[in-house]
Amino acid sequence: MTVRPDIKVVDATIRDGGLCNNFEFTDEFVKSLYKTNIECGVDYMEFGYKASKKLFNESDFGKWKFCDEEALRSVVGNNESPMKIAVMADVGRCDFRNDFLPKSESVIDMVRVACYIHQIPAALEMIQYFHDLGYETSCNIMAVSQANESQIESALDMLGQSCVDVIYLVDSYGYFYPESAAELAQKYVEYGEKYNKLIGFHAHNNQNLAFANTIETMSYGVSYLDATASGMGRGAGNCAMELLLGFLRNPKYSLYALLTFIEKYILPLKAQGVKWGYDIQFMITGQLNQHPREAMKFTADGRTDYCNFYKFISDNE
Amino acid sequence: MTVRPDIKVVDATIRDGGLCNNFEFTDEFVKSLYKTNIECGVDYMEFGYKASKKLFNESDFGKWKFCDEEALRSVVGNNESPMKIAVMADVGRCDFRNDFLPKSESVIDMVRVACYIHQIPAALEMIQYFHDLGYETSCNIMAVSQANESQIESALDMLGQSCVDVIYLVDSYGYFYPESAAELAQKYVEYGEKYNKLIGFHAHNNQNLAFANTIETMSYGVSYLDATASGMGRGAGNCAMELLLGFLRNPKYSLYALLTFIEKYILPLKAQGVKWGYDIQFMITGQLNQHPREAMKFTADGRTDYCNFYKFISDNE
Repeated sequence: MTVRPDIKVVDATIRDGGLCNNFEFTDEFVKSLYKTNIECGVDYMEFGYKASKKLFNESDFGKWKFCDEEALRSVVGNNESPMKIAVMADVGRCDFRNDFLPKSESVIDMVRVACYIHQIPAALEMIQYFHDLGYETSCNIMAVSQANESQIESALDMLGQSCVDVIYLVDSYGYFYPESAAELAQKYVEYGEKYNKLIGFHAHNNQNLAFANTIETMSYGVSYLDATASGMGRGAGNCAMELLLGFLRNPKYSLYALLTFIEKYILPLKAQGVKWGYDIQFMITGQLNQHPREAMKFTADGRTDYCNFYKFISDNE
Repeated sequence: MTVRPDIKVVDATIRDGGLCNNFEFTDEFVKSLYKTNIECGVDYMEFGYKASKKLFNESDFGKWKFCDEEALRSVVGNNESPMKIAVMADVGRCDFRNDFLPKSESVIDMVRVACYIHQIPAALEMIQYFHDLGYETSCNIMAVSQANESQIESALDMLGQSCVDVIYLVDSYGYFYPESAAELAQKYVEYGEKYNKLIGFHAHNNQNLAFANTIETMSYGVSYLDATASGMGRGAGNCAMELLLGFLRNPKYSLYALLTFIEKYILPLKAQGVKWGYDIQFMITGQLNQHPREAMKFTADGRTDYCNFYKFISDNE
């Protein structure tokens, strides 16, 4: 029942949820979510990606794929709130030397650098660059359920010795059970304590365990907890913010404004056909520790022939 | 990775799921589920309630509210399978002295006696009666999230000294988090070891934790694990069998036949408008440790005004 002052709740709805609707949120949606998050006591709001405009055509995506400073300011002004603003920068897909202002000229507070484990050297270069610009940084190592222990330990050592502030355990494939997530979280926390870094957790809901894994890893010392409104996120989605806020006993956090937001903005989005959330096809790729791309295609095609999917995915291994 | 020989998987689809459709399953549905469960390695299949025909009109419900011997035999014959057949008998709603044959004349293997904690003395009377008829028995103490520790300990002592075979921890309101479920499970297991009883767990999915809580309590020594096809069950539903079978590493259990069943029988049921599963209104009653009846009414009325519901439920406390 005690309050953990290290806990930070991170709303990733626009960023991970943007993968469900090509980042095509209305301005009203984003503005309302910003206000909602502040009312709920959310600590960070991640707005989207800083994707390279050389690699991606601006006209092919909503603006939160790029998170231009003007776009951010049109929502948050100068962000006169206690909530911090985050964006994600993908290794290899971000023109980071051109697309970031110095922190003193930007409303962005934190840059989250996402990479696969073999890209850690490239991530470190970006982290140093963002740190030097004045930003808080995190490194979100994706798909670690497919990495082996020595790779992970080596990555944690490299990050430990860097200037990064937060190291994220990311269950990209929704493969972890609470027990395995907790085991790995303990390792991250151990390195975090050694190197004075905080640890974060980003869940996917393939086996309907996103919330359970989030609170389990939290109980083992993870501080940064990613969640999204109604779990909106790629494929099976993420940890639902409403479940997380209902769980946290800190009176700083409250649920009510989020319920209003869900009623007014999330339900219409679902009614329009934007799809995410737990379903059998995601369970299958999660159980098999596979990327959900085939399950996402199955969903997009409106298929429900789970047996064929199961056979296809099992053969494919 | 080792196999726990004490684990028993219990399919409660017809019984708990029957609360979603007034027990009006087609014969084909029930027969197919019976075959599916056998193929998947399920240990027990619960067919429904043995409800009193004095209290309930037969014409108001599907036949699995009553589980007559002929109805059971029309599905399972003499049940020439390793899977056992269970039915539920509710304290106060079961004409148990009239409605049960001796075990030697019945295909039923186990009678699960459901009661609230203040009804333990009545449950004990029924358990003794069923035991004397030759049945395996369990006692499913409902809504223990609202009972206090000394009540629970006293109930476990009384049951420990009885002839009951299995004692169930039942999270009727979907209130428990994995940590609290595990804590209580440890207490049940401790009493189980003292009195030589096995422990079961029956989850509800109000906070999307039914599966997580099931595998968590299992890791603390719970043996009987209730699950239902696609989580079909009252309100937010139960632990999904497909998630549980995917988790268990015992090669005795397999998933494939269940996927076929879901595709062929569960999806059409959902398409017909039979409703169950996690949703905000159930999360709210779960977080508040309340009976889901108001949330079920909200669902049945097709409402989505979560904020009004939240205010109503909070005021109501």
